[in-house]
Amino acid sequence: MKPVIILVRPQLGENIGAVARAMANFDLSELRLVAPRDGWPNQRAIEVSSGASHIIEAAKVYSDFAAATADMELLYATTARPRDMEKRALMPAEATAEIATSSNCCALIFGPERTGLENEEVAASDAIITIPTSSEFSSLNIAQSVVVVCYEWLKNSTNPKLTVKEPAPLASKSEWQGLFSQLEEYLDEVNYYRVEHKKPIMWQNLQTFLMRGGWSEQELRTFRGMLRSLWERDRKNREAIK
Amino acid sequence: MKPVIILVRPQLGENIGAVARAMANFDLSELRLVAPRDGWPNQRAIEVSSGASHIIEAAKVYSDFAAATADMELLYATTARPRDMEKRALMPAEATAEIATSSNCCALIFGPERTGLENEEVAASDAIITIPTSSEFSSLNIAQSVVVVCYEWLKNSTNPKLTVKEPAPLASKSEWQGLFSQLEEYLDEVNYYRVEHKKPIMWQNLQTFLMRGGWSEQELRTFRGMLRSLWERDRKNREAIK
Repeated sequence: MKPVIILVRPQLGENIGAVARAMANFDLSELRLVAPRDGWPNQRAIEVSSGASHIIEAAKVYSDFAAATADMELLYATTARPRDMEKRALMPAEATAEIATSSNCCALIFGPERTGLENEEVAASDAIITIPTSSEFSSLNIAQSVVVVCYEWLKNSTNPKLTVKEPAPLASKSEWQGLFSQLEEYLDEVNYYRVEHKKPIMWQNLQTFLMRGGWSEQELRTFRGMLRSLWERDRKNREAIK
Repeated sequence: MKPVIILVRPQLGENIGAVARAMANFDLSELRLVAPRDGWPNQRAIEVSSGASHIIEAAKVYSDFAAATADMELLYATTARPRDMEKRALMPAEATAEIATSSNCCALIFGPERTGLENEEVAASDAIITIPTSSEFSSLNIAQSVVVVCYEWLKNSTNPKLTVKEPAPLASKSEWQGLFSQLEEYLDEVNYYRVEHKKPIMWQNLQTFLMRGGWSEQELRTFRGMLRSLWERDRKNREAIK
Protein backbone atom coordinates (compact mmCIF):
# COMPACT_ATOMS: atom_id res chain seq x y z
CA MET A 1 0.00 0.00 0.00
CA LYS A 2 1.27 3.51 -0.77
CA PRO A 3 3.01 4.99 2.26
CA VAL A 4 2.25 8.39 3.78
CA ILE A 5 5.18 10.80 4.12
CA ILE A 6 5.41 12.52 7.52
CA LEU A 7 7.80 15.44 8.07
CA VAL A 8 8.35 16.06 11.77
CA ARG A 9 8.98 19.73 12.69
CA PRO A 10 10.32 20.70 9.26
CA GLN A 11 12.15 24.03 9.24
CA LEU A 12 12.51 25.42 5.72
CA GLY A 13 9.52 25.91 3.43
CA GLU A 14 11.66 25.23 0.40
CA ASN A 15 12.52 21.79 1.75
CA ILE A 16 8.82 21.01 2.19
CA GLY A 17 8.24 22.11 -1.41
CA ALA A 18 11.13 19.96 -2.66
CA VAL A 19 9.74 16.99 -0.72
CA ALA A 20 6.37 17.47 -2.45
CA ARG A 21 8.08 17.45 -5.84
CA ALA A 22 10.00 14.28 -5.03
CA MET A 23 6.76 12.61 -3.88
CA ALA A 24 5.07 13.50 -7.17
CA ASN A 25 8.12 12.31 -9.14
CA PHE A 26 7.86 8.91 -7.54
CA ASP A 27 4.11 8.54 -7.42
CA LEU A 28 3.29 9.30 -3.79
CA SER A 29 0.70 11.85 -2.71
CA GLU A 30 -0.17 11.98 1.00
CA LEU A 31 1.96 14.42 2.99
CA ARG A 32 1.61 15.13 6.71
CA LEU A 33 3.44 17.83 8.65
CA VAL A 34 4.05 17.86 12.39
CA ALA A 35 4.37 21.44 13.72
CA PRO A 36 6.18 23.09 10.80
CA ARG A 37 8.48 25.75 12.26
CA ASP A 38 7.34 28.64 10.06
CA GLY A 39 3.62 27.89 10.26
CA TRP A 40 1.29 26.76 7.52
CA PRO A 41 0.48 27.51 4.69
CA ASN A 42 4.00 28.45 3.66
CA GLN A 43 4.55 30.57 0.55
CA ARG A 44 8.07 29.26 -0.13
CA ALA A 45 6.84 25.66 0.02
CA ILE A 46 4.18 26.47 -2.57
CA GLU A 47 6.70 28.18 -4.89
CA VAL A 48 9.27 25.37 -4.76
CA SER A 49 6.67 22.63 -5.17
CA SER A 50 5.83 23.84 -8.70
CA GLY A 51 4.11 21.03 -10.53
CA ALA A 52 3.36 19.27 -7.24
CA SER A 53 1.33 22.01 -5.56
CA HIS A 54 -1.64 19.64 -5.23
CA ILE A 55 0.41 17.74 -2.65
CA ILE A 56 1.17 20.93 -0.70
CA GLU A 57 -2.47 22.00 -0.81
CA ALA A 58 -3.69 18.65 0.45
CA ALA A 59 -1.02 18.35 3.19
CA LYS A 60 -2.44 17.89 6.70
CA VAL A 61 -0.89 19.59 9.70
CA TYR A 62 -0.70 18.02 13.18
CA SER A 63 0.44 19.43 16.47
CA ASP A 64 2.49 16.43 17.52
CA PHE A 65 3.96 13.09 16.47
CA ALA A 66 1.30 11.00 18.22
CA ALA A 67 -1.56 12.77 16.49
CA ALA A 68 0.10 12.51 13.05
CA THR A 69 0.65 8.77 13.41
CA ALA A 70 -2.52 7.74 15.28
CA ASP A 71 -4.26 6.05 12.33
CA MET A 72 -1.10 4.40 10.97
CA GLU A 73 -0.17 0.75 11.48
CA LEU A 74 3.54 0.62 10.62
CA LEU A 75 6.03 3.46 11.10
CA TYR A 76 9.42 3.60 9.36
CA ALA A 77 11.71 6.23 10.87
CA THR A 78 14.60 7.49 8.72
CA THR A 79 17.68 8.31 10.70
CA ALA A 80 21.30 8.96 9.82
CA ARG A 81 22.70 8.49 13.32
CA PRO A 82 22.82 4.98 14.74
CA ARG A 83 20.47 4.67 17.72
CA ASP A 84 21.09 2.34 20.55
CA MET A 85 17.84 0.46 20.19
CA GLU A 86 16.74 -3.09 19.55
CA LYS A 87 14.96 -2.09 16.41
CA ARG A 88 14.97 -3.56 12.93
CA ALA A 89 17.29 -1.48 10.73
CA LEU A 90 16.56 -1.54 7.02
CA MET A 91 18.03 -0.19 3.81
CA PRO A 92 15.66 1.98 1.75
CA ALA A 93 15.15 -0.83 -0.77
CA GLU A 94 14.26 -3.39 1.91
CA ALA A 95 11.84 -1.06 3.66
CA THR A 96 10.04 0.03 0.53
CA ALA A 97 9.80 -3.54 -0.78
CA GLU A 98 8.19 -4.49 2.53
CA ILE A 99 5.76 -1.55 2.36
CA ALA A 100 4.86 -2.32 -1.24
CA THR A 101 3.60 -5.78 -0.32
CA SER A 102 2.04 -4.78 3.00
CA SER A 103 -1.70 -4.40 3.44
CA ASN A 104 -1.12 -2.08 6.41
CA CYS A 105 -1.15 1.72 6.51
CA CYS A 106 2.52 2.63 6.51
CA ALA A 107 4.29 5.93 7.11
CA LEU A 108 7.80 7.02 6.13
CA ILE A 109 8.95 9.52 8.75
CA PHE A 110 11.62 12.20 8.39
CA GLY A 111 12.92 14.43 11.20
CA PRO A 112 13.84 18.13 11.30
CA GLU A 113 16.79 19.34 9.19
CA ARG A 114 19.26 20.06 11.98
CA THR A 115 18.62 17.43 14.59
CA GLY A 116 16.72 14.53 13.08
CA LEU A 117 14.02 12.65 14.97
CA GLU A 118 13.93 12.54 18.76
CA ASN A 119 14.81 9.23 20.40
CA GLU A 120 11.21 8.77 21.60
CA GLU A 121 9.97 9.18 18.05
CA VAL A 122 12.37 6.56 16.76
CA ALA A 123 11.40 4.32 19.68
CA ALA A 124 7.73 4.68 18.74
CA SER A 125 8.46 3.45 15.23
CA ASP A 126 8.48 -0.14 14.02
CA ALA A 127 11.68 0.00 12.03
CA ILE A 128 14.59 2.29 11.19
CA ILE A 129 15.62 3.18 7.65
CA THR A 130 19.21 4.25 7.09
CA ILE A 131 20.37 5.53 3.74
CA PRO A 132 23.91 4.33 2.98
CA THR A 133 26.23 7.32 2.56
CA SER A 134 29.91 8.11 2.52
CA SER A 135 31.47 7.72 5.95
CA GLU A 136 33.21 11.05 5.41
CA PHE A 137 30.18 13.13 4.49
CA SER A 138 26.97 11.54 5.66
CA SER A 139 24.68 14.54 6.17
CA LEU A 140 21.94 14.26 3.58
CA ASN A 141 19.57 17.16 3.05
CA ILE A 142 16.01 16.20 4.02
CA ALA A 143 14.70 16.59 0.46
CA GLN A 144 17.55 14.38 -0.83
CA SER A 145 16.66 11.73 1.75
CA VAL A 146 13.05 11.82 0.60
CA VAL A 147 14.20 11.54 -3.03
CA VAL A 148 16.18 8.38 -2.28
CA VAL A 149 13.45 6.69 -0.26
CA CYS A 150 10.65 7.64 -2.69
CA TYR A 151 12.78 6.53 -5.65
CA GLU A 152 13.21 3.13 -3.99
CA TRP A 153 9.47 3.06 -3.33
CA LEU A 154 8.64 3.47 -7.02
CA LYS A 155 11.34 1.02 -8.02
CA ASN A 156 10.19 -1.66 -5.61
CA SER A 157 6.44 -1.14 -5.82
CA THR A 158 5.94 -1.09 -9.55
CA ASN A 159 8.91 -3.08 -10.75
CA PRO A 160 9.33 -0.50 -13.51
CA LYS A 161 10.69 -1.66 -16.81
CA LEU A 162 12.34 0.71 -19.19
CA THR A 163 10.37 1.18 -22.34
CA VAL A 164 13.20 0.10 -24.57
CA LYS A 165 12.70 0.12 -28.28
CA GLU A 166 12.25 -3.34 -29.69
CA PRO A 167 15.78 -4.08 -30.88
CA ALA A 168 16.13 -4.38 -34.63
CA PRO A 169 16.67 -7.99 -35.78
CA LEU A 170 20.32 -8.95 -35.98
CA ALA A 171 22.04 -9.46 -39.29
CA SER A 172 22.14 -13.10 -40.35
CA LYS A 173 25.41 -14.98 -40.64
CA SER A 174 25.10 -15.10 -44.42
CA GLU A 175 24.98 -11.28 -44.42
CA TRP A 176 28.13 -11.22 -42.31
CA GLN A 177 29.76 -13.64 -44.72
CA GLY A 178 28.81 -11.29 -47.54
CA LEU A 179 30.49 -8.39 -45.76
CA PHE A 180 33.58 -10.42 -45.02
CA SER A 181 34.11 -11.61 -48.58
CA GLN A 182 33.65 -8.07 -49.85
CA LEU A 183 36.12 -6.72 -47.32
CA GLU A 184 38.61 -9.54 -47.85
CA GLU A 185 38.67 -8.82 -51.57
CA TYR A 186 39.25 -5.10 -51.00
CA LEU A 187 42.02 -5.65 -48.45
CA ASP A 188 43.82 -8.21 -50.60
CA GLU A 189 43.73 -5.82 -53.50
CA VAL A 190 45.29 -2.93 -51.52
CA ASN A 191 47.89 -5.31 -50.03
CA TYR A 192 46.64 -4.48 -46.54
CA TYR A 193 48.48 -7.29 -44.77
CA ARG A 194 51.89 -6.55 -46.29
CA VAL A 195 53.25 -9.83 -44.88
CA GLU A 196 51.32 -12.87 -46.11
CA HIS A 197 51.85 -15.09 -43.03
CA LYS A 198 50.31 -12.44 -40.77
CA LYS A 199 47.06 -12.44 -42.69
CA PRO A 200 45.24 -15.29 -40.85
CA ILE A 201 45.55 -13.76 -37.37
CA MET A 202 44.99 -10.17 -38.52
CA TRP A 203 41.93 -11.15 -40.50
CA GLN A 204 40.53 -13.15 -37.58
CA ASN A 205 40.98 -10.23 -35.18
CA LEU A 206 39.36 -7.83 -37.62
CA GLN A 207 36.32 -10.07 -38.05
CA THR A 208 36.06 -10.59 -34.30
CA PHE A 209 35.84 -6.95 -33.35
CA LEU A 210 33.62 -6.01 -36.27
CA MET A 211 31.13 -8.66 -35.19
CA ARG A 212 31.18 -7.63 -31.56
CA GLY A 213 28.76 -4.71 -32.05
CA GLY A 214 25.86 -7.05 -32.82
CA TRP A 215 24.79 -5.06 -35.85
CA SER A 216 21.32 -5.27 -37.30
CA GLU A 217 20.76 -6.17 -40.92
CA GLN A 218 20.27 -2.48 -41.71
CA GLU A 219 23.44 -1.46 -39.89
CA LEU A 220 25.49 -4.13 -41.60
CA ARG A 221 24.14 -3.00 -44.96
CA THR A 222 25.05 0.60 -44.11
CA PHE A 223 28.58 -0.48 -43.27
CA ARG A 224 28.90 -2.37 -46.55
CA GLY A 225 27.57 0.67 -48.39
CA MET A 226 30.15 2.85 -46.71
CA LEU A 227 32.97 0.50 -47.72
CA ARG A 228 31.62 0.37 -51.27
CA SER A 229 31.52 4.17 -51.44
CA LEU A 230 35.15 4.39 -50.43
CA TRP A 231 35.96 1.68 -52.94
CA GLU A 232 33.99 2.83 -55.96
CA ARG A 233 35.56 6.20 -55.83
CA ASP A 234 38.74 4.22 -56.24
CA ARG A 235 37.28 2.21 -59.13
CA LYS A 236 36.24 5.42 -60.83
CA ASN A 237 39.83 6.56 -60.62
CA ARG A 238 41.13 3.27 -61.94
CA GLU A 239 38.77 3.52 -64.85
CA ALA A 240 40.02 7.02 -65.47
CA ILE A 241 43.57 5.66 -65.71
CA LYS A 242 42.69 3.17 -68.43
CA MET B 1 36.26 2.33 -11.02
CA LYS B 2 34.76 5.53 -9.58
CA PRO B 3 32.89 7.45 -12.27
CA VAL B 4 33.43 11.11 -13.11
CA ILE B 5 30.34 13.33 -13.03
CA ILE B 6 29.99 15.64 -16.04
CA LEU B 7 27.40 18.43 -16.05
CA VAL B 8 26.82 19.72 -19.57
CA ARG B 9 25.94 23.43 -19.80
CA PRO B 10 24.52 23.63 -16.26
CA GLN B 11 22.47 26.76 -15.65
CA LEU B 12 22.03 27.43 -11.92
CA GLY B 13 24.99 27.68 -9.55
CA GLU B 14 22.87 26.31 -6.72
CA ASN B 15 22.27 23.13 -8.70
CA ILE B 16 26.00 22.70 -9.25
CA GLY B 17 26.50 23.13 -5.50
CA ALA B 18 23.78 20.59 -4.72
CA VAL B 19 25.37 18.14 -7.16
CA ALA B 20 28.70 18.51 -5.34
CA ARG B 21 26.99 17.74 -2.03
CA ALA B 22 25.31 14.65 -3.46
CA MET B 23 28.64 13.46 -4.86
CA ALA B 24 30.28 13.82 -1.44
CA ASN B 25 27.34 12.07 0.24
CA PHE B 26 27.82 9.06 -1.98
CA ASP B 27 31.61 8.98 -2.13
CA LEU B 28 32.35 10.49 -5.52
CA SER B 29 34.76 13.35 -6.08
CA GLU B 30 35.60 14.26 -9.67
CA LEU B 31 33.31 16.87 -11.17
CA ARG B 32 33.60 18.31 -14.70
CA LEU B 33 31.58 21.18 -16.12
CA VAL B 34 30.99 21.90 -19.79
CA ALA B 35 30.41 25.61 -20.43
CA PRO B 36 28.49 26.54 -17.25
CA ARG B 37 25.99 29.25 -18.22
CA ASP B 38 26.92 31.75 -15.51
CA GLY B 39 30.68 31.31 -15.78
CA TRP B 40 33.11 29.86 -13.28
CA PRO B 41 33.85 30.09 -10.38
CA ASN B 42 30.28 30.59 -9.22
CA GLN B 43 29.59 32.04 -5.78
CA ARG B 44 26.19 30.41 -5.40
CA ALA B 45 27.66 26.98 -6.20
CA ILE B 46 30.26 27.46 -3.48
CA GLU B 47 27.63 28.51 -0.91
CA VAL B 48 25.27 25.63 -1.60
CA SER B 49 28.03 23.04 -1.68
CA SER B 50 28.79 23.58 2.00
CA GLY B 51 30.73 20.60 3.29
CA ALA B 52 31.58 19.58 -0.26
CA SER B 53 33.42 22.70 -1.35
CA HIS B 54 36.55 20.65 -2.09
CA ILE B 55 34.64 19.14 -5.02
CA ILE B 56 33.63 22.58 -6.32
CA GLU B 57 37.18 23.88 -5.97
CA ALA B 58 38.64 20.91 -7.85
CA ALA B 59 35.99 20.97 -10.61
CA LYS B 60 37.42 21.27 -14.11
CA VAL B 61 35.76 23.40 -16.76
CA TYR B 62 35.70 22.52 -20.47
CA SER B 63 34.47 24.45 -23.47
CA ASP B 64 32.66 21.57 -25.11
CA PHE B 65 31.43 18.01 -24.73
CA ALA B 66 34.24 16.47 -26.79
CA ALA B 67 36.97 18.07 -24.68
CA ALA B 68 35.31 17.03 -21.41
CA THR B 69 35.03 13.40 -22.48
CA ALA B 70 38.25 12.96 -24.48
CA ASP B 71 40.09 10.85 -21.89
CA MET B 72 37.03 8.80 -20.88
CA GLU B 73 36.33 5.29 -22.14
CA LEU B 74 32.64 4.73 -21.34
CA LEU B 75 29.97 7.45 -21.30
CA TYR B 76 26.60 7.00 -19.61
CA ALA B 77 24.12 9.72 -20.62
CA THR B 78 21.16 10.34 -18.32
CA THR B 79 18.05 11.30 -20.18
CA ALA B 80 14.38 11.53 -19.26
CA ARG B 81 13.07 11.63 -22.80
CA PRO B 82 13.22 8.48 -24.88
CA ARG B 83 15.57 8.92 -27.84
CA ASP B 84 15.14 7.14 -31.09
CA MET B 85 18.53 5.47 -31.03
CA GLU B 86 19.84 1.94 -31.07
CA LYS B 87 21.58 2.43 -27.75
CA ARG B 88 21.63 0.32 -24.59
CA ALA B 89 19.14 1.75 -22.05
CA LEU B 90 19.85 1.04 -18.40
CA MET B 91 18.28 1.66 -15.02
CA PRO B 92 20.50 3.53 -12.52
CA ALA B 93 21.20 0.33 -10.59
CA GLU B 94 22.26 -1.60 -13.69
CA ALA B 95 24.50 1.18 -14.95
CA THR B 96 26.22 1.77 -11.62
CA ALA B 97 26.74 -1.95 -11.04
CA GLU B 98 28.39 -2.14 -14.43
CA ILE B 99 30.60 0.87 -13.67
CA ALA B 100 31.55 -0.54 -10.27
CA THR B 101 33.06 -3.64 -11.81
CA SER B 102 34.55 -1.94 -14.87
CA SER B 103 38.24 -1.24 -15.19
CA ASN B 104 37.52 1.58 -17.65
CA CYS B 105 37.28 5.33 -17.06
CA CYS B 106 33.54 5.97 -16.90
CA ALA B 107 31.55 9.21 -16.86
CA LEU B 108 27.98 9.85 -15.75
CA ILE B 109 26.67 12.71 -17.86
CA PHE B 110 23.80 15.08 -17.03
CA GLY B 111 22.35 17.70 -19.39
CA PRO B 112 21.19 21.27 -18.79
CA GLU B 113 18.19 21.86 -16.53
CA ARG B 114 15.65 22.93 -19.13
CA THR B 115 16.49 20.91 -22.20
CA GLY B 116 18.60 17.91 -21.26
CA LEU B 117 21.42 16.62 -23.45
CA GLU B 118 21.52 17.26 -27.19
CA ASN B 119 20.91 14.27 -29.46
CA GLU B 120 24.52 14.30 -30.67
CA GLU B 121 25.71 14.11 -27.06
CA VAL B 122 23.50 11.12 -26.35
CA ALA B 123 24.64 9.57 -29.63
CA ALA B 124 28.28 9.98 -28.58
CA SER B 125 27.60 8.04 -25.38
CA ASP B 126 27.82 4.29 -24.90
CA ALA B 127 24.59 3.83 -22.96
CA ILE B 128 21.55 5.73 -21.72
CA ILE B 129 20.44 5.86 -18.08
CA THR B 130 16.80 6.54 -17.37
CA ILE B 131 15.54 7.07 -13.82
CA PRO B 132 12.11 5.50 -13.35
CA THR B 133 9.59 8.18 -12.35
CA SER B 134 5.85 8.68 -12.17
CA SER B 135 4.30 8.85 -15.61
CA GLU B 136 2.32 11.89 -14.46
CA PHE B 137 5.21 13.95 -13.14
CA SER B 138 8.50 12.85 -14.57
CA SER B 139 10.55 16.06 -14.50
CA LEU B 140 13.33 15.46 -11.99
CA ASN B 141 15.52 18.38 -10.91
CA ILE B 142 19.13 17.85 -12.01
CA ALA B 143 20.42 17.65 -8.44
CA GLN B 144 17.76 15.05 -7.60
CA SER B 145 18.80 12.99 -10.63
CA VAL B 146 22.39 13.11 -9.46
CA VAL B 147 21.28 12.06 -5.96
CA VAL B 148 19.52 8.98 -7.32
CA VAL B 149 22.36 7.90 -9.60
CA CYS B 150 25.11 8.55 -7.01
CA TYR B 151 23.07 6.76 -4.33
CA GLU B 152 22.86 3.72 -6.61
CA TRP B 153 26.58 4.05 -7.23
CA LEU B 154 27.41 3.80 -3.53
CA LYS B 155 24.91 1.00 -3.06
CA ASN B 156 26.26 -1.06 -5.93
CA SER B 157 29.94 -0.29 -5.60
CA THR B 158 30.39 -1.22 -1.97
CA ASN B 159 29.19 -4.74 -2.58
CA PRO B 160 30.39 -5.36 -6.10
CA LYS B 161 29.64 -8.68 -7.69
CA LEU B 162 32.34 -10.62 -9.42
CA THR B 163 32.54 -10.28 -13.16
CA VAL B 164 35.09 -11.15 -15.78
CA LYS B 165 37.45 -8.25 -16.36
CA GLU B 166 37.72 -6.63 -19.74
CA PRO B 167 40.81 -8.15 -21.36
CA ALA B 168 42.01 -4.92 -22.98
CA PRO B 169 41.33 -1.31 -21.98
CA LEU B 170 38.71 0.37 -24.14
CA ALA B 171 39.66 3.05 -26.61
CA SER B 172 39.33 6.54 -25.15
CA LYS B 173 36.81 9.01 -26.48
CA SER B 174 39.55 11.13 -28.03
CA GLU B 175 40.60 8.09 -30.06
CA TRP B 176 37.02 7.63 -31.21
CA GLN B 177 36.88 11.31 -32.08
CA GLY B 178 40.02 10.79 -34.16
CA LEU B 179 38.43 7.91 -36.02
CA PHE B 180 35.25 9.85 -36.62
CA SER B 181 36.98 12.91 -38.04
CA GLN B 182 39.06 10.70 -40.34
CA LEU B 183 35.99 8.82 -41.54
CA GLU B 184 33.89 11.96 -41.90
CA GLU B 185 36.55 13.48 -44.14
CA TYR B 186 36.73 10.38 -46.35
CA LEU B 187 32.96 10.08 -46.66
CA ASP B 188 32.51 13.75 -47.49
CA GLU B 189 35.14 13.45 -50.16
CA VAL B 190 33.47 10.47 -51.88
CA ASN B 191 30.06 12.17 -51.58
CA TYR B 192 28.78 9.25 -49.51
CA TYR B 193 25.59 10.96 -48.32
CA ARG B 194 24.46 12.06 -51.80
CA VAL B 195 21.70 14.21 -50.20
CA GLU B 196 23.08 16.81 -47.79
CA HIS B 197 20.09 16.97 -45.44
CA LYS B 198 20.31 13.23 -44.76
CA LYS B 199 23.87 13.50 -43.48
CA PRO B 200 23.14 14.26 -39.78
CA ILE B 201 20.96 11.23 -39.14
CA MET B 202 23.02 8.87 -41.33
CA TRP B 203 26.21 10.00 -39.66
CA GLN B 204 24.71 9.61 -36.19
CA ASN B 205 23.51 6.07 -36.95
CA LEU B 206 26.90 5.13 -38.38
CA GLN B 207 28.73 6.39 -35.28
CA THR B 208 26.25 4.65 -32.99
CA PHE B 209 26.70 1.18 -34.42
CA LEU B 210 30.45 1.52 -34.87
CA MET B 211 30.75 2.42 -31.17
CA ARG B 212 28.58 -0.42 -30.05
CA GLY B 213 31.32 -3.06 -30.27
CA GLY B 214 33.28 -1.48 -27.40
CA TRP B 215 36.57 -1.67 -29.25
CA SER B 216 39.90 -1.59 -27.48
CA GLU B 217 42.49 1.00 -28.38
CA GLN B 218 44.29 -1.64 -30.48
CA GLU B 219 41.12 -2.64 -32.30
CA LEU B 220 40.18 0.94 -33.02
CA ARG B 221 43.67 1.56 -34.39
CA THR B 222 43.39 -1.53 -36.58
CA PHE B 223 40.08 -0.26 -37.96
CA ARG B 224 41.59 3.14 -38.72
CA GLY B 225 44.52 1.44 -40.40
CA MET B 226 42.14 -0.59 -42.53
CA LEU B 227 40.30 2.56 -43.62
CA ARG B 228 43.57 4.30 -44.36
CA SER B 229 44.72 1.34 -46.49
CA LEU B 230 41.58 1.54 -48.58
CA TRP B 231 42.02 5.27 -48.84
CA GLU B 232 45.69 5.52 -49.65
CA ARG B 233 45.37 3.08 -52.48
CA ASP B 234 42.89 5.61 -53.75
CA ARG B 235 45.37 8.42 -53.26
CA LYS B 236 48.01 6.52 -55.17
CA ASN B 237 45.61 6.22 -58.06
CA ARG B 238 44.73 9.86 -57.92
CA GLU B 239 48.39 10.69 -58.00
CA ALA B 240 48.75 8.39 -61.00
CA ILE B 241 46.10 10.39 -62.84
CA LYS B 242 48.01 13.62 -62.47
